[in-house]
Amino acid sequence: MAGIAPARLGEFALIERYFRPLATYPGAFNLLDDVAVLRPKAGEELVLTTDLVAAGVHFFPDDPPESIARKALRVNLSDLAAKGAEPVGYLLAIALPSDWSEVWIRKFTRGLAGDQKRYGISLLGGDTSRASGGLTISITAIGRLPKGTTVRRKGARPGDTVYVSGTIGDGALGLRLRLGSIDGAPAGRAAARLRDRYLHPEPRVALAPVVRRYASAALDVSDGLVGDLGHICEVSGVGATIEAAAVPLSKPATALVATDPGALATVLTGGDDYEILCTVPKRSGAAFAAAAGKAGVPVTRIGVMTPGRGGPIVIGPDGEPLALGAKAFDHFGPK
Amino acid sequence: MAGIAPARLGEFALIERYFRPLATYPGAFNLLDDVAVLRPKAGEELVLTTDLVAAGVHFFPDDPPESIARKALRVNLSDLAAKGAEPVGYLLAIALPSDWSEVWIRKFTRGLAGDQKRYGISLLGGDTSRASGGLTISITAIGRLPKGTTVRRKGARPGDTVYVSGTIGDGALGLRLRLGSIDGAPAGRAAARLRDRYLHPEPRVALAPVVRRYASAALDVSDGLVGDLGHICEVSGVGATIEAAAVPLSKPATALVATDPGALATVLTGGDDYEILCTVPKRSGAAFAAAAGKAGVPVTRIGVMTPGRGGPIVIGPDGEPLALGAKAFDHFGPK
Repeated sequence: MAGIAPARLGEFALIERYFRPLATYPGAFNLLDDVAVLRPKAGEELVLTTDLVAAGVHFFPDDPPESIARKALRVNLSDLAAKGAEPVGYLLAIALPSDWSEVWIRKFTRGLAGDQKRYGISLLGGDTSRASGGLTISITAIGRLPKGTTVRRKGARPGDTVYVSGTIGDGALGLRLRLGSIDGAPAGRAAARLRDRYLHPEPRVALAPVVRRYASAALDVSDGLVGDLGHICEVSGVGATIEAAAVPLSKPATALVATDPGALATVLTGGDDYEILCTVPKRSGAAFAAAAGKAGVPVTRIGVMTPGRGGPIVIGPDGEPLALGAKAFDHFGPK
Repeated sequence: MAGIAPARLGEFALIERYFRPLATYPGAFNLLDDVAVLRPKAGEELVLTTDLVAAGVHFFPDDPPESIARKALRVNLSDLAAKGAEPVGYLLAIALPSDWSEVWIRKFTRGLAGDQKRYGISLLGGDTSRASGGLTISITAIGRLPKGTTVRRKGARPGDTVYVSGTIGDGALGLRLRLGSIDGAPAGRAAARLRDRYLHPEPRVALAPVVRRYASAALDVSDGLVGDLGHICEVSGVGATIEAAAVPLSKPATALVATDPGALATVLTGGDDYEILCTVPKRSGAAFAAAAGKAGVPVTRIGVMTPGRGGPIVIGPDGEPLALGAKAFDHFGPK
């Protein structure tokens, strides 16, 4: 159909100038072909994951282009890490709104370039198009690991210890700060830190080999801690009990929860954490925590897997189970 | 962010009811995990390709859901076939507009299911979300083939014969009929056939092993015959001369070109063909054509690769080179 902006770069020039330099992997053929070729080594398997983010749904249209790029990429890398996989590269399909500019693309691809270096990955291929509405980015990321070692949601057993990396709730609180929906919201550096966690998730790539070695089940926390633990429970056919007081919080999150007890529900169910939640057989707990520390990623024991079903029980600060609302983010459901 | 339609299915129910039955591949884990696992056989390499289609850009929002599903999937399978690869499966990221309905999803997934059966593939994973505007579908398809046999755009040599499968121009003419921008347009069955070619491309999956065996370079015709041949020329560092009169046309396309000479340019540069364009060393031409015939796919010799550069020359019906306008579809450029 008709073009939209004769004065701007054409599709091919856009690819050549901004995307080709990102395709450093030999099998990406400098984006001069229709496909990327991957040759897994003997004894390896590949894992693939895809996530789509759209303006106004997953990010704000006026977020910095570098930040949008990082978030779109990192939510995928987070999935790979939680499965124990080392990232190889990604395919990028981007649909640009009618008011796209070359400056925006330059910043966006700069964001990708920085993260490619940071995580040792390459653009493998892609598609550039016009959007039906706002900016839409779909990324498919590919990781590799030794055959048969992919860590799944399935595999948790009663008695396994529940661990989570980093701190929980910062991303969800950062989003609510951004939306102006928190009373008594912190100002200054604390607020900036929370907003930054929402904008720039930190996929726990360094933890991947440790998860692969020790975890019986794992996933990354994107829908919300309680909901995601519920996913492990459901697929593994077990239950879980965690203690709210044991869930690791950052200083700004701790301060917020202290002044607004309602913020605790946001922390536990809000999502956008991109930390790794995993279960580890009891006998391996100490070794797991030590290896995680060595990898530079703090992990915290927050509970235990239990027999039976019905989703996780969260013990509140008063020793009673918490009644939480929506347990996982649902793009379509009531919330 | 806030949900949109409490009365409709939630994200998880949607996946469970409509997408899970499509995930027949064991490594897709019934969509109960965050990734799909692929274990290529020894001696195999994988090829990956991604294409995004959006309402109002690549299809009409009121196209039948089954047709939208088929087109989104088939444009990717076409890329795999042209590279000589056998399709394995695909990841699907779908962003739904605010007025989505369960009936629409049922029809859409029925379209996918039919094509999965037809091409022997499986849904491997995906992401379901809200759209920032109209319906947007991003598919990443994965194919496999023996190591080192991927057919590239690079590899054509002077003297190689240029072949194309099927007929050219039907899709582009079908689109123009749909847009009402053809004078003296055919009615009845002829028009229906052209529109159908636009809606339902037929990826030449059966030709993949033949292309792999004989072609020096190949791609699928999506941007337009002349433009796509230009891609082979550019990457291979050679030229090409083809004869317009040799380009295979369907009966309805032949009739249109006879009444409206301007339609020839649409045929040659319009795109949306999803036929395979390839170059074959002269000595292998007869064997290639015979093998293609055996695979049930007609192929036609339309020209020859030449030394030098500068893109393809198209000899018109009068023996003089044709002056064509835009040679390849550009989503952003003037057209």
